[in-house]
Order: sequence, then structure tokens, then C-alpha cells
Amino acid sequence: MNVFIIGIGLIGGSFAIDIKAAFDDAKIYGIDESEENLNKALDLGLIQYKSSLDKLEKADIVIVAIPVDATVQMLPVILDKINDDCLVFDVGSTKQKLCKTVSEHKKRRNYLAAHPIAGTEFSGPQAAIANLYRGKTNIICEVEKTAFKLQERGMEIFSRLGMRIRYMDSASHDKHIAYVSHLSHISSFMLGKTVIEKEKNERDIFDMAGSGFASTVRLAKSSPAMWAPIFKHNKENVIETLEEYIANLTQFKKLIEDDNFTEIYKEMQDTNHIKTILKGIS
Amino acid sequence: MNVFIIGIGLIGGSFAIDIKAAFDDAKIYGIDESEENLNKALDLGLIQYKSSLDKLEKADIVIVAIPVDATVQMLPVILDKINDDCLVFDVGSTKQKLCKTVSEHKKRRNYLAAHPIAGTEFSGPQAAIANLYRGKTNIICEVEKTAFKLQERGMEIFSRLGMRIRYMDSASHDKHIAYVSHLSHISSFMLGKTVIEKEKNERDIFDMAGSGFASTVRLAKSSPAMWAPIFKHNKENVIETLEEYIANLTQFKKLIEDDNFTEIYKEMQDTNHIKTILKGIS
Repeated sequence: MNVFIIGIGLIGGSFAIDIKAAFDDAKIYGIDESEENLNKALDLGLIQYKSSLDKLEKADIVIVAIPVDATVQMLPVILDKINDDCLVFDVGSTKQKLCKTVSEHKKRRNYLAAHPIAGTEFSGPQAAIANLYRGKTNIICEVEKTAFKLQERGMEIFSRLGMRIRYMDSASHDKHIAYVSHLSHISSFMLGKTVIEKEKNERDIFDMAGSGFASTVRLAKSSPAMWAPIFKHNKENVIETLEEYIANLTQFKKLIEDDNFTEIYKEMQDTNHIKTILKGIS
Repeated sequence: MNVFIIGIGLIGGSFAIDIKAAFDDAKIYGIDESEENLNKALDLGLIQYKSSLDKLEKADIVIVAIPVDATVQMLPVILDKINDDCLVFDVGSTKQKLCKTVSEHKKRRNYLAAHPIAGTEFSGPQAAIANLYRGKTNIICEVEKTAFKLQERGMEIFSRLGMRIRYMDSASHDKHIAYVSHLSHISSFMLGKTVIEKEKNERDIFDMAGSGFASTVRLAKSSPAMWAPIFKHNKENVIETLEEYIANLTQFKKLIEDDNFTEIYKEMQDTNHIKTILKGIS
């Protein structure tokens, strides 16, 4: 089984490790615009061969793990190059623009739109880890547009990697993921920014930071190259979540200004309900 | 050494465990307005004796680990009851109002204003853990107002528990801690609220949440009984941090609306600097 992975970073590299372990006959070919990343991936044993787009014809599986704007550019080109029996799936955090881009492509049936909800705040081939996907949810959009036997091939991979599958239309995916993923990244980046700005005038305040702060700003370590295109693709939904978040913060500030600490207590108590919700999330 | 701990929850209980382990002669007495908590603390072995305020006269150390508004009420009463050689310290997340409250008390020299930057999102005696304070920063305010030999007694405890000491005036403490602690809690609570509100109309979106979301809303599990009084005590500083945070979020939203993704990239890249800052925080 020839597996071509385009973009050998945290996500692509972690697929490489687990697929190689789960399929005896898997040969992993890496494609990356950075020659340095490609060499690292080879040194780390993530891939067995460095490759390039003009070799895609011999692929059985192509995994596209590059920023979403690059995927929109590349996906039609990739579909043009593959053979009729090849499955291509991407792993991007937005799905609507991508599905639209290839909706009329003659090889649309070779493409599966996927979004594994997995990752860390690190990036690059050195960030790739085994079992990243075990127990995680993989959202598949518009599955009916993918050829059935290629769906099966995809599911076999996801299943052996231990993923749970959830089906969804791409518009709902983009709307919901804005809340549970894109907004958290912005809240974290802006929290980090607010405190960094303050530290310019008041030195050493980070010595006072504890594990709570670290947890809340963890996502502010994430890659801008990955995230700027996500916000661009999901502009309308992200703006909507930001407006609701800012409105809630503003109302909370008003409650403090008004000394309405009974209501503040109640707001926090209601939100404590998140404990139950988070139980299922590692 | 008779150690009285008022408030046997996560913070008080964790002090109980470590002090008992670090001092052979320590006897731990628990005081709590909840009889149920007190019994739990006894069953868990956190305390050796249940006690009450009228026994404080025999204390060598009193640790006040209750919400900050209750501490403001209780601290003068506690100081009235202790003997002249007893050290009282509190562990609250605001210090200015507390220091002001006892500034003219005739036993001001028996009080040490402390804030160990340690905790988890859990609460109650069952949340108490060993070594919670190891390697953590303990901020001491207005140390010069505490009798020298009682400072030494406090430092001996903090040192054996593995804490790093940082000295600060109480106004600076409250100002800075608003940024690195109080603001993160509000950002987390409001993020939780925003997503929970959304889920009322769009079911099952939490199935799509990953570890990044979990990390960012972790603090929204925190105790309202502890946090509402903190926001009340530190009202002006918290409002200031919230205004800056909301301004940064609003500006980020504007950049998305304007399709200025170059600047969005730059904002995130600048904030990535948080990586270096967080290295020292467990």
C-alpha cells in the first residue's frame, strides 16, 4: 500500500507513524515544500521515501496535511494526478470551502473530506507522535460523495488508528467547529497578547503565573501558518463566535462594575456544568 | 507544633498533608464551617483533630484558607484569639483589602500576608494532594509588618514545602495577579458559557471538542464561592484587564472582517513568544 503524505508535520507525521505500525505492507512517501522538513522526516523514520507530486500516480492513499488555504490550491492538482483507484483525504479544520472547490471535479469520488480532532500545540516533523488519533473523533463531511470502496479504505485506516467517526455536512462542521476549536484559539492568543503587552511596562509578572494561566494560554503556542488560513476560510462563523464571546465578557464586566456578585456567582455556577461535559474529553 | 487550619479544602488540606510530612511534631487541627468537610478531612487523615475558634489560643500556626471575603471578616477575630507567639497566614488571591483590614490591629505583627500560586480546578477536602506547593511561587506582601521571628517560622514551613518566595507590596500583587490569574479565569468561564449557550440550540457540538478546548476551559470548573469574592476584592484591576482583553479581541475581529490576514498572522506570531515565557511554568 503506497501512502503519500503531503505535509510531514505534526498531523501528517503522526499519521505516518500509526499507518506504518498498523499496515504491514504500508510504504510511506513524504512530500513537503520544505526540503529540510522532508530530510528530518526521513531521519526520524516517519517516511521511507522522499517523493514529489509527479509520482502521485502510484499512490493508493494520499493524505493532505497542509494549511487549509494551500489545500484549496493543491487538491484539484492532486486529484488530476492520481489514478482512478486512489483515495485522497485531507485533515483540515475547515471543510466547506474545500468541498466546494472540488465539487465539480471529475475525480470528486476519490476525495474524502476528513477532520480528525487531534493535535498538540507543537508543529513540524519532530512534533509527530504515535497514537495521536487513538480515541479521537474524526469528522467526515459529505461522505456520500466519495466512492463506496474508497470510503471503506478510509474507514479501515481510521478504525485501525482507533478513531471514532462522526458524519456531518460541511456547513454544520464549519459552524460548530468555530465554537469548540477556532474560538478557543483566539481567546488564548488574545489572552497571551494582553498579558505580554502588560509585561512590557510591569516586568516579571510571569513569575506570578501558575498552571491555570499556562493551561489557558497553551493554544497561543499554535502555528500562525496553520491558523491564519483557518480564520480566513471560516470568517463568518468565527466572527459570529467572537461577537458572542465579547458580548458575554462585556456583560460579565458590567456585573462587576455594578457590584452584582450574586449574579456573577450564578454565572460561574451555571458554567461549572462544563465539568460534566469535559468528562469525555481527554 | 500546633497547626490550626481554617478551611479544610484543596488549599488548606494540601498544606495539612505537607506540613504533617515535613514536621515530626506537627499536630493538625481543622476548623471548617461545614461539619461534613471536617469529618471528611478527619476520615482522609488530613487533620488529626476537629477544632473550633475558641481553641485558637493554643495554636503555634494558623493557616486561613477560606474565600477572601470570609477572610476579611475572620482575620481580626482570629488575631484577637491567638497567643502573642502565634503566626497567622492566609493564602488568598487578593491581598490589598486584607492588609488594610488588619493594618491597625494590635496583633498585626502576628500576621503574614501570603499567596501561594498553586491549586487545581477542584475543591473540597477530597481534592487535597501532597506536594501541591513544591516548586511553586509564594508571594509574600508587606513582609516588614510581620514580626521577624514569625517571618522565620513561616519561611521554615514554606522552605520545607519547597516553595519559592517572592516579596511584593499588596497593591502591585493585586494589579499583577489580575493579569496572570483573575483574567484567565474569566476568559475561561466566558468561553465555557459561550459554547454552552450555543449547544442549547445545536446539540452534540461538544462531541467535536478536543484537548485544546478542554485546556482552555479547564478553569471554568473552578469554585464560584472562591472566585466571586476575588473579583469583588479586586474589582478595579479586574475591570482594567477585562477592558484590555475585550479591546484586543475586538481588534482581532476587525482584522478578520477587513480580511487583513497578514496582520492576523503577525499578531499570532508575536504572541507565540508565550512559548518561551511558559517554559518555567509547570
